[in-house]
Order: sequence, then structure tokens, then C-alpha cells
Amino acid sequence: MALKSEIFEQPSVLERLLASQKENIENIVRKLRQYDIWFLFLAARGTSDHAGIYAQYLWGANNQLPMALATPSLFSIYAKPPNLQNALVVGVSQSGQSPDIISVVEEGNRRGCPTLAITNTPSSPLAEVADFVIDIKAGKETAVAATKTYTAQLMAIAMFSAIMKQDTAQWSALARVPAWVQQVLMLDDAIAQSAQRYRYMDQCVVLGRGYNYATAYEWALKLKELTYVMADSYSSADFQHGPIAVVESGYPVLAVSPRGAVFDGMLKLIQRLANEYKAELLVVSNQEEALQLAQVSIAIPDDIPEWLTPLVSIVPAQLYCNYLALAKGYDTDAPRGLHKVTETL
Amino acid sequence: MALKSEIFEQPSVLERLLASQKENIENIVRKLRQYDIWFLFLAARGTSDHAGIYAQYLWGANNQLPMALATPSLFSIYAKPPNLQNALVVGVSQSGQSPDIISVVEEGNRRGCPTLAITNTPSSPLAEVADFVIDIKAGKETAVAATKTYTAQLMAIAMFSAIMKQDTAQWSALARVPAWVQQVLMLDDAIAQSAQRYRYMDQCVVLGRGYNYATAYEWALKLKELTYVMADSYSSADFQHGPIAVVESGYPVLAVSPRGAVFDGMLKLIQRLANEYKAELLVVSNQEEALQLAQVSIAIPDDIPEWLTPLVSIVPAQLYCNYLALAKGYDTDAPRGLHKVTETL
Repeated sequence: MALKSEIFEQPSVLERLLASQKENIENIVRKLRQYDIWFLFLAARGTSDHAGIYAQYLWGANNQLPMALATPSLFSIYAKPPNLQNALVVGVSQSGQSPDIISVVEEGNRRGCPTLAITNTPSSPLAEVADFVIDIKAGKETAVAATKTYTAQLMAIAMFSAIMKQDTAQWSALARVPAWVQQVLMLDDAIAQSAQRYRYMDQCVVLGRGYNYATAYEWALKLKELTYVMADSYSSADFQHGPIAVVESGYPVLAVSPRGAVFDGMLKLIQRLANEYKAELLVVSNQEEALQLAQVSIAIPDDIPEWLTPLVSIVPAQLYCNYLALAKGYDTDAPRGLHKVTETL
Repeated sequence: MALKSEIFEQPSVLERLLASQKENIENIVRKLRQYDIWFLFLAARGTSDHAGIYAQYLWGANNQLPMALATPSLFSIYAKPPNLQNALVVGVSQSGQSPDIISVVEEGNRRGCPTLAITNTPSSPLAEVADFVIDIKAGKETAVAATKTYTAQLMAIAMFSAIMKQDTAQWSALARVPAWVQQVLMLDDAIAQSAQRYRYMDQCVVLGRGYNYATAYEWALKLKELTYVMADSYSSADFQHGPIAVVESGYPVLAVSPRGAVFDGMLKLIQRLANEYKAELLVVSNQEEALQLAQVSIAIPDDIPEWLTPLVSIVPAQLYCNYLALAKGYDTDAPRGLHKVTETL
């Protein structure tokens, strides 16, 4: 049961990260001020790539930094990398082992760009090649499906953003995240019950938008890894540009839609899915209007600012995947066909 | 049967585009030389977003331009856009109507960036706000599922790249694309037959990598739009970072893997899927080693350079989706729940 215990470790992991990496990140941010940085270039795979999506939204909205998500094969296999001059190059990887991610950071070094690694393994090859390293200090992760390393990556990204912005109110909000996560973990029993309903689900759609676009991706990946359910993730906008066609009466749609700027659009789509499409809805939210439309509703704390909701809203999703995997009779610690470290070119 | 006739129009659409837009693109490229451009920032939705993925690879590898795919909600709903200074801002949309795409280009204008629209509607609001316009001249598209506007967008992107590179050999290769597409259209009967086999498929995975990552996305979207099959697309690398867990014996995997730099890696994955996972394989390729591993193989012409394969390899996929939709008894011109122009914020 490594998976469940790692899910429950998250409040203490986040607490430790907040306390231990503040000074390091302040130093990194200070040193970065001497560079001309016009854009960010971020390389990651799998769960770490979803942390990258969060960074794309947060560093974009909060720090006005445009971000390109890397296409690692241009660096590794094609050996025709784009010109990264004037970029801050970021590699995100819990293991720090994947050759394709390392090749992007090495190209940044060759171009004289500042390079940053966000990793759980400060002795890894990725950390060695980067100028700056944020150690997410999540401790050893034994379950193959990443949980605490994901929320720790999000926390590192959020800390970096708040420090760059020099915004103390944002820092105070960050300090409340471990308690919010703790609160959501108390839904454990209710989620274990609800997961039973999905015992025979073999496919579904996961919706999120803005900051929680990352949550939709990460939830869908956990579903595929742990429960072998074919789950596809979309922003509410992209979903309406075609894929909504798959929804028929009773089709399961999981939606992450806490209060925030994108809530109205998400609510409109959820209403349409409930009323027009008769979809089966599972909703994670802190807004009654959205929760009441769902067959299964998961209420998260009311007072989380939107930019921090991804650190909290993924936690019930992790629990849900854990219990659904158990309901289906699968091994949650070692899903079929997967290894903890995946090295791809 | 608008869909099928639009699929068959593609050779002449591409021919016309090559002839009519060369001079315009040469002018645009000349004018762009006066700007400092450190990166590209591209906004698109749905099928046009897949053309954007192709541009990300091609303009990266062939023109050394790093590209960020936009998160339109930061511009529209959040109204907290990143700083686009020193970017070339590109909007891709066949209709040129979507407010979120337009809002990205408008922000580019506010920042003094050069802005470029790639559209089938030169009188659209998107074309009006952009400094430069490439009209893909695909003619009216009646079927809701985009086919000829997609390959025309790819062609415009490829023309832009070859002209920027000032590479006449590349231009000669471009001129051969309509004939290659014509050749693939002759597989019509064989594909109509093969599609029957998938009558009861309700989910599948589509794999592609590098230039054909775009093809995997576009094929999966066409499957969802036209056949309501839950199709998920991956690069071979990302697939091995988790989602491969969904594959069990007989699980349908569609793979696009023509000769090129990423072929060896794709072949290794296809071999693993065939031998270890006993997956059901449909392969689009011009390499015998890959084709022979498939239950259903679709051979594309042998002499297409890798960077142009996406313009050809999507065509049998379009035919496949058309025939699978018919086999399942669906209306190919007006899939349920979809409209031709989708306006999202």
C-alpha cells in the first residue's frame, strides 16, 4: 500500500519543501535577474509534464513569462534543436534520469542560457548539468504512480512564482496549502465509497481549464496507469471543438472546476453536459452550483485562491484512482507494464 | 458525402495553394527580417492546433525557431497575458472567428510584435487584426470534420519554412506533395474494406512521433468527431511514461511511422506492442519492417522526405475515419453535437 501512504504523506512533504527550499529559490531568483530572459523553455515527460503545464499558466499569469513546452526529440533524436538564446531552460523530472530531458538542458548550456532543474534527486545527471537546482525533497517514492512528487513539483513551481513576484500575500497563501491538502484527505472514506460506482467504467473524459488544465491531464494519466481506464483530458474549450461528440447518455465525465476566472465557462459546459447530453458527472469543486449537477460530488475547501487549487484538487483524484484500482482488483503499487524510471530518447 | 469529396479535393487544393501563395509568403518572410524574433507564439484550437504542432517541429528543426503553443485563456478569460515582446505571434484558424485566438493576436499587436494569421477566411476578424495573412485557399469546407483545411494549413506551414530557409531542394520536394496525396487516395477501396474490421471498436490509441506527432493528434480527433471512438494520441516516448498500461491483448493501436529519424524508436515500440503486449496493430508506413507487424497495414509512397510525411500520412487516416463512421451507421457530414464554427473564449 505504498501508493496510499504516499498520498497521505503529502501535507508533510509540502510543509518540508516550504521550509527547506525558500532560501535556495530566493538565491536562484536573485541570480537569474542578471540574465535577459524573454521566454521559458521547459522539458518534462509524463507527470512532470503536467507540472510543466501548471508552470505555463502560473508563470505566464503571475510573472508574465511566456513558456514553450519542449519537443525533446528535436534535441535528442533529430539533433536539430531550435535556438534557445534568451530563454530560461527548465528540466522537470523526479528521477532526473531521462536522456531526452537532459539533452534539452545541455543544449541550453551550450547556448549560454541559464538552466534550472526541478527534481527529487539532486544527485541525478539532470541536476548535475543544470546551473540551478530545486530539490523537491519528497523522499523516496516507491509506488510507480507519482503522487507526492507531483504535488511537490507544483509547490516548487508556486514558490518560485511567488518569490519572483516578491508578493508576501501569495507566500502566506502558499503556507496554507498543507492544511488544505490535509482537509481533503479527510474525504478518504467518502471517496472510497464513491469509487465503487465506477467499477465497470472502461473509458471517460476529464475536464479542467486554466490552472486546472494540469489537474485534468494528471488525473487522466493516473486513471490510465492505475485503473487501465482510457481517460482523455481536455480544456473545456478544446473539448467543444470536436471531442464532445463522444458523449452519449450516461457517459462518464469527470470535471475539476473550483471557483475562479474560468469557473463560469466550466459551469456552462457542465450544465450542457448534464441537461443536453445526460452525461454521468463527477465534479470536484468548491462551488455549490457545479457540485449539485453531479451524480458524485467532491467538495474541496472554500477559501483556496484559484492559482493554488491544482495542489489541492489533484488529491481527491489520487484517492479516487487508488480506490478504483482496488475495486477493479489491481495492484496499485506496480501497475502492469510500467517502471518507476522511464528512460526515453 | 461532402466529407469524402473534400478528402478527394486535397491534391488540387494543395496544388492551388502552392501556385497562389508563394509570392505572398516570400513577401511576408522578407518583411519579417526587420524584426528581432526570438521565439514564436502560436494560438489555435482543435484541428488547427494540430497544424500548430507540425509547425512547432518543422520551424524548430528547419528554421531553429523555438515555439510556444499559446494558452488562450490567459489572454481572454484571465486577462493576464505573458509578455510577448520579441515573439512572432501566429493565429491559425480555418474560420478566423474564435474570440480566444483573436485575443492572442491582438495582444501581440499591443506589444508591437509582428502578427501572422493562417486562415481559410481572409475576410475574417482574425485576418483583419493580423499584420500578415496566409490565405490557405481550400475553398468552402462543408463537412463539419476538417480535412482539406488541415492539409492546406500544413502546406502553408511547410511553404513558409522552405521559403524562410531559402532552400530550393525543399521547394522541389513540396511540389511533389499533391502527387503523393493522389497516390494515397488510390488506397480508397482497400481502406474501405479494412475499416469494417473496426466496426465494434470503442476505444484505441494513436501513436506518432516527431513530425507525425501532429498526425497522431489529428487522427485521434477525427476518430472522436466522426466515429465517437475514444481515441487517445501519444508520442512513442510519452506513451511509455505511463499510458502503455492500458494495452492488453487485442487492444487496438494505430501507428504512424514512416521512414525518418524517429523510425527506429517507433519500430522498437511497435515490436514490443506486437510481441509482448499482443496488441492489434494498424500501421501507416513506408517501411516493410513496420508494416509486416500489423494486422492491417497501409503503405504510403516510399520517397517522401520525413518532414513532408504528415501531409500524406493523414490522408489514409481521413479515409479510414470516413469508412468507419459509415460502417457504424453515422452521418459523416454532421456528427452529433458539433458545429462547423466553434467560438470559445
